[in-house]
Amino acid sequence: MPGEFELIGRHFTGRGARREDVLTAVGDDGAVVAPLPGAALVLALDTLVDGVHFPVGFDARFVGHRALAVNLSDLAAMGAEPAWALLGLTIPSPDEHWLAGFCAGFEALARRHGVALVGGDTTRGPLTVTVTLAGAVPEGGALRREGARPGDDLWVSGTPGDAAAGLQILQGRLYAQGRAREALLARFQSPQARVALGVALRGIATACIDLSDGLLGDLAKLCAAGGVGAELASRELPLSAGLCSVAAPADRIRFALAGGDDYELLFTADPSHRAKLTALDAGVVLRRIGMVTEGDGVLVDGAPPGRDAGHGFDHFG
Amino acid sequence: MPGEFELIGRHFTGRGARREDVLTAVGDDGAVVAPLPGAALVLALDTLVDGVHFPVGFDARFVGHRALAVNLSDLAAMGAEPAWALLGLTIPSPDEHWLAGFCAGFEALARRHGVALVGGDTTRGPLTVTVTLAGAVPEGGALRREGARPGDDLWVSGTPGDAAAGLQILQGRLYAQGRAREALLARFQSPQARVALGVALRGIATACIDLSDGLLGDLAKLCAAGGVGAELASRELPLSAGLCSVAAPADRIRFALAGGDDYELLFTADPSHRAKLTALDAGVVLRRIGMVTEGDGVLVDGAPPGRDAGHGFDHFG
Repeated sequence: MPGEFELIGRHFTGRGARREDVLTAVGDDGAVVAPLPGAALVLALDTLVDGVHFPVGFDARFVGHRALAVNLSDLAAMGAEPAWALLGLTIPSPDEHWLAGFCAGFEALARRHGVALVGGDTTRGPLTVTVTLAGAVPEGGALRREGARPGDDLWVSGTPGDAAAGLQILQGRLYAQGRAREALLARFQSPQARVALGVALRGIATACIDLSDGLLGDLAKLCAAGGVGAELASRELPLSAGLCSVAAPADRIRFALAGGDDYELLFTADPSHRAKLTALDAGVVLRRIGMVTEGDGVLVDGAPPGRDAGHGFDHFG
Repeated sequence: MPGEFELIGRHFTGRGARREDVLTAVGDDGAVVAPLPGAALVLALDTLVDGVHFPVGFDARFVGHRALAVNLSDLAAMGAEPAWALLGLTIPSPDEHWLAGFCAGFEALARRHGVALVGGDTTRGPLTVTVTLAGAVPEGGALRREGARPGDDLWVSGTPGDAAAGLQILQGRLYAQGRAREALLARFQSPQARVALGVALRGIATACIDLSDGLLGDLAKLCAAGGVGAELASRELPLSAGLCSVAAPADRIRFALAGGDDYELLFTADPSHRAKLTALDAGVVLRRIGMVTEGDGVLVDGAPPGRDAGHGFDHFG
């Protein structure tokens, strides 16, 4: 059985993008990197737990992809450009096949976003993956959850609800076949963080959050941070063809409002930016779904959302 | 039962030192901090797993302390000054009493070292704690594992072996009482990272590593990184009064050479620095225990160490 240090050497050295600002990477007590002069540093940490954040037996490539994707999404929501990752990997046993898959999933996404794996820790225990991602944003340029103003438009990227439908398909709780099945599964298995969009929204979005716990739950957090309310129109929700083909109309809306794991961006902007945002090419379609209001409640089609619309995923609720 | 977000608000907001370079802390998708102009950034991540890195039922305060201490020790070994921490905490259930203890242990150590808790993630699952710690070092000033040169002195801080004896006492495998018991237990429960020493060693140490897996195992890594060997004299090993009072002479040496979890610094330096190092006041005693040699082996008292002297802790060996 290979030793821990051999494992680290074989699987985790030199992973991700090559970056000239990495001065010391995997193999010392810490990593040394050179931050961009004048930039602020953005740091995010997310943990994925086996059987909680992904189904037991989930393909290792997807675990590797998702572990980085959820952190990329956090940086996207801050308008930051990702640079350096650290990986805390706890595994029950050193399964070479699993590790190779995990690394392949992590690596492909890291390279796509110019992220270097600079350090971390491999330990024995129940399968848990924690990634820390660091990146840069111009000083004063970070997007925040707070800052939404009454009268701002409310926007969302992509087609929320797909990932939750994909998870239900994976669990055998929702039936789908053909292209719809593949498309929805992919949205859960390999979410695409909206990094380019986050960067493009600097100076435009007044507030921004990524959709991890469901649109309504994350919107409630954005509203709470800004001391505002919001109204949204369910007919404006962007629904994918895949979702529409597998879910009845009321269910589609429920998926879009309450489904988690989308890793899209929800943001607010002054109405003067409508034309610019509609024309923006950041690799994903944007949709205006409502507006920011005075007060502190969220209304859907003029009424408080029903209980079954969900209030965001809460681990201990 | 309190929700995840309420938990985070109650236990993790505003923890640790107040730092003016923290622009956005806990409560957004990521933290935003302002790195020191001209400094390199040092990043470390360590995971502690229940029943692997600490005994099941270990006091929550000590879990909190140790989770930060092991990362502080990594930064110390790089000669870095710690600044910002992120906490990935996976817990089976939101036990308020446990969380309060954990935070108290983490907080006290964070404040002592000027570290602000700026972000993280709380999840449900088997007890696992991952901390990422970021800090600063002058560009080009980081201590490294590599760099030891034949003829350099080999130094160690503190009294290695105590923590391993403390763990055995905790496990009921070693008998101790009174002050020796308290002192050895404390060395395992609340290790003191040698941050001030690491900073003082900039420009002096040619190579440095922290002792987490046992002196011989970590020395072997330092030697491998530098392509050198080392000779050490067991009579020069600094042994604590506590260790000497509970262990027979041969066992003391074994604890000092093979015991893990000490979080002392092992480093090499040119003999011209002997007087300076002997007089150095960095809160811990330094001892010269051997020298760096050509070749690639480690000799203890002129011979390869016996198998029972240990080869460092290896999770999967």
